Amino acid sequence: MPEADAQPTANIGVVGLAVMGSNLARNLASREGNTVAVYNRSRSKTDELVAEHPEAGFVPAFSYEEFAAALQKPRTALIMVKAGAPTDAVIESLMEVFEPGDIIIDGGNSLFTDTIRREKAVRERGFNFVGMGVSGGEEGALHGPSLMPGGPDEAWVTLAPILRSIAAVAPDGEPCVTHVGHDGAGHFVKMVHNGIEYADMQLIAEAYDLIRRGTGKTPAEIADIFAEWNTGELESYLIEITAEVLRQVDAETGKPLVDVILDSAGAKGTGAWTVQTALDLGVPVSGIAEATFARSLSSHREQRAVSGGLPGPAEDAFTVDDANAFVEQVRLALYASKIVAYSQGFDEIRAGAAQYGWTIDLGAISKIWRAGCIIRAQFLNRIADAYAAEPNLEVLLTAPYFVDALGRAQGAWRHIVGTAATAGIPAPAFSSSLAYYDGLRAKRLPAALIQAQRDFFGAHTYQRIDKPGTFHTLWSGDRTEVEAEDTH
Amino acid sequence: MPEADAQPTANIGVVGLAVMGSNLARNLASREGNTVAVYNRSRSKTDELVAEHPEAGFVPAFSYEEFAAALQKPRTALIMVKAGAPTDAVIESLMEVFEPGDIIIDGGNSLFTDTIRREKAVRERGFNFVGMGVSGGEEGALHGPSLMPGGPDEAWVTLAPILRSIAAVAPDGEPCVTHVGHDGAGHFVKMVHNGIEYADMQLIAEAYDLIRRGTGKTPAEIADIFAEWNTGELESYLIEITAEVLRQVDAETGKPLVDVILDSAGAKGTGAWTVQTALDLGVPVSGIAEATFARSLSSHREQRAVSGGLPGPAEDAFTVDDANAFVEQVRLALYASKIVAYSQGFDEIRAGAAQYGWTIDLGAISKIWRAGCIIRAQFLNRIADAYAAEPNLEVLLTAPYFVDALGRAQGAWRHIVGTAATAGIPAPAFSSSLAYYDGLRAKRLPAALIQAQRDFFGAHTYQRIDKPGTFHTLWSGDRTEVEAEDTH
Repeated sequence: MPEADAQPTANIGVVGLAVMGSNLARNLASREGNTVAVYNRSRSKTDELVAEHPEAGFVPAFSYEEFAAALQKPRTALIMVKAGAPTDAVIESLMEVFEPGDIIIDGGNSLFTDTIRREKAVRERGFNFVGMGVSGGEEGALHGPSLMPGGPDEAWVTLAPILRSIAAVAPDGEPCVTHVGHDGAGHFVKMVHNGIEYADMQLIAEAYDLIRRGTGKTPAEIADIFAEWNTGELESYLIEITAEVLRQVDAETGKPLVDVILDSAGAKGTGAWTVQTALDLGVPVSGIAEATFARSLSSHREQRAVSGGLPGPAEDAFTVDDANAFVEQVRLALYASKIVAYSQGFDEIRAGAAQYGWTIDLGAISKIWRAGCIIRAQFLNRIADAYAAEPNLEVLLTAPYFVDALGRAQGAWRHIVGTAATAGIPAPAFSSSLAYYDGLRAKRLPAALIQAQRDFFGAHTYQRIDKPGTFHTLWSGDRTEVEAEDTH
Repeated sequence: MPEADAQPTANIGVVGLAVMGSNLARNLASREGNTVAVYNRSRSKTDELVAEHPEAGFVPAFSYEEFAAALQKPRTALIMVKAGAPTDAVIESLMEVFEPGDIIIDGGNSLFTDTIRREKAVRERGFNFVGMGVSGGEEGALHGPSLMPGGPDEAWVTLAPILRSIAAVAPDGEPCVTHVGHDGAGHFVKMVHNGIEYADMQLIAEAYDLIRRGTGKTPAEIADIFAEWNTGELESYLIEITAEVLRQVDAETGKPLVDVILDSAGAKGTGAWTVQTALDLGVPVSGIAEATFARSLSSHREQRAVSGGLPGPAEDAFTVDDANAFVEQVRLALYASKIVAYSQGFDEIRAGAAQYGWTIDLGAISKIWRAGCIIRAQFLNRIADAYAAEPNLEVLLTAPYFVDALGRAQGAWRHIVGTAATAGIPAPAFSSSLAYYDGLRAKRLPAALIQAQRDFFGAHTYQRIDKPGTFHTLWSGDRTEVEAEDTH
């Protein structure tokens, strides 16, 4: 335990002063009642931040001992360092200088299973550990992020007023933060947020591509379409910035910027995590998977280089007769697919909560995404309404509002998926979402044939529609059916 | 080290005598020159096996010491127990009684990363460890499986004659076994085999569903179609058993069996592993993913129960005018989608080899799948031809034979995907495969828009098509472009 040389003055501290950490520290310092201690492994970052922002009144610390001494009890430290080993190292260092009851928050992009592990280890040593998802990028961190803290109730009591003060504020005045659940719940929800973001971006990209190739409109003209869409049910940050991006002209060539950018999409891995976790949970998140795969396909330039000559409709063979009608059909397809993507994402959160024993209020999650984060959208109010009306909704898209929207959209959606297939334009997320939708509503799926095949070659058994029990047909014998032990 | 009470007589031993283990032991014992020691944790299984199969001349062992004493050196033990902790326990027990240079084979369905870990640990103690994929189920184990061993070259020299003697034999007389590569390579390839199997089965299920719903043909009539398909380019075990399954009549109800089986498909997890691994490797295996998700969707009965009323085309609204033409279009769509599924699977093996430092002969892999395993098919000869002509083929489906096949099929494929979308029949694997194909051959993808969005909200930077370097547009500044450090 450090000696307290002076009275501690800070009510929260930030460790790790790269751009996200320093912006969150500035955000914290700007709110009434907060005094923020700051610490960074290399002293220069701390000195710079303190010098550049005298208005913040930061309390600089140059060792973990000084950092601990600067903090009022229970001490609260927000770690903003790289996920993985660096986070573990900082947690260990803090525990050496903190006292039981103090609160350690990991605000990095940690995998939720790491957070579960850390929470357990930290709790066993008497500290409170909070894994917090932070969305909104650098700007969000500075002006108001969407915050997804997971951890013990005791820590939430202390943190709630501080986090509420720095979070983004939804249009109805509610701060975009809630106590998501215990241990890894916050990072889990942040992961799914990012997965949905992947799907949303891919859907927008497909909509843009179809309109461009179908109507021959310029990116600037399509920017106007997105700006128009942003006044309706699609209103969202991603639609808004799509218009901004498509309007941007490259200074060097005079061409639309989108035409000079290399068409290889990068990824930081949270999309893949979302899909990998969904596979463990048995939740079909096909829209997120297709979006993740579309990015990796785009980045395999060597494969695309040898595939350019594959047979298919000519690039310029596709034009639509009625551009306005087509644009509206694409909008409806986008909206319907988006409903599917969010429904799949919330399904994953629901399954994760069941698996890991979290109590997660799905309506509250949709509300804290209404501002500050990348997927902020009008639409999230509809999700909040759906869960307010029926908190245990089995499938989000079966809420009356979405059923109505899907009913209006489905004709256009089907038409657009068919058009893309015919025209040779890849629309993996549009078509996958539709297939999921039709799978969900199917009275009978050919999965029965798959079960029969599995029973044929692997004696995996099957169940019947007309009576309980587990059965096996003696396929290599006399082909009678026998009752079997359930080997599933 | 055990005392050798008598001269050891067995050249191979099997640990774990459940159905797979005992069938492999019987297969081994039936081959010229082999004497097989057998051991099981509970004595009764060993006694039973030895009593029921006197012709096998098994050497029973009732302790690990006896087992080791029964084996000639270098000792060779094939472990056939549950993947996970039981496998680790048996390996540990064998190392206690074996000597350096002895060979331990894990023939279970182990995750390849476990095999990598085990191989290293076992090697460090001086033993040889082989992780071997075994495909073909119980029948294959007894009469000739497809074997995918991975491990050190030294072990392969000893094992090759034994494994060649028990493996399935391809139509050209070659045994279905090859030294896949080092450490986890065998289990990796077996995993991808299973992933391809998921895709293949889902594609067949979609074809069946479309034909049934489009033409109103009975399962027995559709059985005839599959039997007919099995005489052509689709010739394969899975097509063959589909015909068998569809012809099966339930004795109790007189209905086609496929109509009384519950339409909830089970899964043992290898499909999910294949997709999870592909996500780590950045390989788009969308067909396998959609197949895996289709199974999980089918098994969510509570979700399907509340989704039956979702808006869409009526179940009986879809009929085709020309049934024969439609069936042929479905066949072509199935064949094209199957080419995509295999191409994606081989892409994953190629990427896995690069990632883990394995030298894998892709042509040899296609050859050892030609008999013994579930995905055995005519078609695999075409894959072998493709890799024989070009061992470093960047994308399997760009081989001339497949390009030709895809050229013939693509019109029908597009039509079928469009038809399914319009009719409201879920065809996730058909449509996903087509979208992948069109993505691969696209001159330009809307991934450029995604990169611009990522740069807008997260300063993730982008590259340009016209010059090297990494760039960022100052979106919240004056919107000029600046050179950036590569943060990818």
